[in-house]
Amino acid sequence: MKILIKNIAEIYSPFVELRKNQFILIEDQIIKKIGKMSKINQIKEYDYLIDADKKIVLPGYINTHSHAAMTLMRGYADDMPLDRWLQNKIWPFEAEMDADDIYWGTALALMEMIKTGTTTFSDMYFAMDRVADIVGKSGIRAVLAEGLIEANDGQEGLNKALKFALDYSGAADGRITTMLAPHAPYTCGREYLEQIRDLARENSLPIHIHLSESKKEIFDFLEKHQLSPVKYLAEFDFFANHVLAAHCVHLESGDLEIISDNNIQIAHNPMSNAKLANGIAPVKKYLDKGVNVSLGTDGVSSNNSLDMLKEAKMASYLQKIKYSDPTAISTKSILEIITINGAKALALSNVGLIKEGYQADLQLIDINNSTFFYPHHNNLSNLFYAADSGSVDTVIVAGKVLMENKELKTLDTEKIYYEAEKRALKIAQKLR
Amino acid sequence: MKILIKNIAEIYSPFVELRKNQFILIEDQIIKKIGKMSKINQIKEYDYLIDADKKIVLPGYINTHSHAAMTLMRGYADDMPLDRWLQNKIWPFEAEMDADDIYWGTALALMEMIKTGTTTFSDMYFAMDRVADIVGKSGIRAVLAEGLIEANDGQEGLNKALKFALDYSGAADGRITTMLAPHAPYTCGREYLEQIRDLARENSLPIHIHLSESKKEIFDFLEKHQLSPVKYLAEFDFFANHVLAAHCVHLESGDLEIISDNNIQIAHNPMSNAKLANGIAPVKKYLDKGVNVSLGTDGVSSNNSLDMLKEAKMASYLQKIKYSDPTAISTKSILEIITINGAKALALSNVGLIKEGYQADLQLIDINNSTFFYPHHNNLSNLFYAADSGSVDTVIVAGKVLMENKELKTLDTEKIYYEAEKRALKIAQKLR
Repeated sequence: MKILIKNIAEIYSPFVELRKNQFILIEDQIIKKIGKMSKINQIKEYDYLIDADKKIVLPGYINTHSHAAMTLMRGYADDMPLDRWLQNKIWPFEAEMDADDIYWGTALALMEMIKTGTTTFSDMYFAMDRVADIVGKSGIRAVLAEGLIEANDGQEGLNKALKFALDYSGAADGRITTMLAPHAPYTCGREYLEQIRDLARENSLPIHIHLSESKKEIFDFLEKHQLSPVKYLAEFDFFANHVLAAHCVHLESGDLEIISDNNIQIAHNPMSNAKLANGIAPVKKYLDKGVNVSLGTDGVSSNNSLDMLKEAKMASYLQKIKYSDPTAISTKSILEIITINGAKALALSNVGLIKEGYQADLQLIDINNSTFFYPHHNNLSNLFYAADSGSVDTVIVAGKVLMENKELKTLDTEKIYYEAEKRALKIAQKLR
Repeated sequence: MKILIKNIAEIYSPFVELRKNQFILIEDQIIKKIGKMSKINQIKEYDYLIDADKKIVLPGYINTHSHAAMTLMRGYADDMPLDRWLQNKIWPFEAEMDADDIYWGTALALMEMIKTGTTTFSDMYFAMDRVADIVGKSGIRAVLAEGLIEANDGQEGLNKALKFALDYSGAADGRITTMLAPHAPYTCGREYLEQIRDLARENSLPIHIHLSESKKEIFDFLEKHQLSPVKYLAEFDFFANHVLAAHCVHLESGDLEIISDNNIQIAHNPMSNAKLANGIAPVKKYLDKGVNVSLGTDGVSSNNSLDMLKEAKMASYLQKIKYSDPTAISTKSILEIITINGAKALALSNVGLIKEGYQADLQLIDINNSTFFYPHHNNLSNLFYAADSGSVDTVIVAGKVLMENKELKTLDTEKIYYEAEKRALKIAQKLR
């Protein structure tokens, strides 16, 4: 299958200057050729034509930390103290969710992701075989891991999570890769974490974990172990693996060096950290130190969307505030964080750039029909600082069109709305 | 003219519990009757019917601080140190803008405001007679003031600003009211400000001013006057008038009491304060003290949109961060800040609520066709914390439909895009 995208107004991709008036030829899953419109007559054969007149092309966004099925809890609990929010609302709701609920909650999440320009997401949740099912159907790219809380899941859960990781690695024509995901150093004991460390190494699996999210976590660790969570994990060589650490909001002295020296991959979740009042992660410091920072939405219940464009603007503006520096995190830097940095964080090769030989994971954004793109001084600024996801027009993953002219091609909108709504309200009703 | 809106799923308005399955009858400019759908047969006569099935109704948003024509500078200068941004980019661009540019820049701004659910805005800029022209045509409600910088405008400018304020008060069938707008205490000298204070009092005109925006402003005032800007103005009784103060990010000891005692109206601009790295205003403190806080976008060049929904989410999440408190600024509080508080700040009566006898300034929001509204646990949370302005379906101001089914009724979209684009790029080209 060959797809030709013609008349592209502008292509934005990390590390490359802005390219204007371009075409892109996609062959099977791959970006085969990028060229100037004046050379388009070189392309003799294609099966499908997309006219990108007055549209710009970017790599699809890469959401490196989510709990997709939590869409079912959108708006269910807001503006509450953290412990009451978790204990009285989130955990009881999750306890009522079965594998089918997770399937439909994830389906709603995938609709939202595709509509808002996300082409890859990383998920840590439960019933991941069902998540993999809907990922397969949707056409999106995903890095999946069964979340492990030692007290709930124990050895049996770990065995199941490992089996999932091994069985599903490379599933859906290679669109699915997997990780091991101990929830956090405060919900998994040292021996459990050491076991996961070894299993990850033996099976070449990356690890996805929550780390240094709240002040309370740091405080408790210092009291219990006389070590920050980062130092505690470093002590037993947990970071010898590829580790994707979500949040990393709070640093104790020496933590930054450990993160940098061990090449820890950061999933920054500014919206969730703000909503739950956990603070602002020191992203500028990480970047200055050469640490790879990517962007995640976290679950919908602490966001309350999976919209990476909102996340990007929040990330930039919060760093400007934190460092009293309006130059902190430029649009160019956002573009890297939201695309190629995400691919690195998820250990994905040939993903995250508009570049020949890379996976054809990209989006077309309409710059003609929204006030947010007028005037056209700088479309990347207009996108990240002004627009909303309503301008995402077409989304392609691994060479397959998942949305065109804002119409979803692989997911049944009405069925997903119906199922997600019914299941979410039923659980809320039961818990009332 | 009587407009009947039927089948409203929910009405949200400050101070009133959620109302479901309602109708609203608008007669001329006024909300005449609100009732349950079961009683709609009481309404025998109407000229125009709107079916609000699967839509919710809110008061239109009230943007209390903007410089609308700065839309022409969207994306023109970002991620720069404040002084270079102003001196090398914003001021030179503004110096090239003529009255026609301001007209078309404001027209673009009004399109954006109406599309994003804003029904009233407060503007401080230049060539305000031209701003009033397009406000009149658009149908939006506006509070207009000619901005005054003493060194530029002097006595002549003040005379002109006063004449504008008197001539245009009550213009456009009462949709336009006016203020006097000395730019800031650091760009207008004491005698100039005293003169404005007296003219405001004599002519019953409110005052719109920038106040305590940056740390530098506070530092300079303390050095020059040994007083904070707030105390400096209080010393010569500037606050005896109705004063709308934009920003108020930084408080020195005693400032909060002065603001509260003098009933100073705050226009909070969280996005602009973040982008320019000025900080986070102490909104929670103001509210706890009973100070009226409203919401503004500031100019597009420091935002970069006029989208009050983005502003509202930012306002809430920044307060949660600032006070390490996830309960800070609930959705209920946002609803007040973005509607009725704005009306109070702008000295508008009978505006800002969905209430019989109030001006019919309202919006219909589609909760059926966006993932952001699924599931429907809480539509106000879904609106403020998840949605984007793409769900705004219909906007009515003073009983006139300005947008219906997302189609603008009073403004010529193509013409405005063309003119704004042409003029903005021409100025940028000239300055290159």
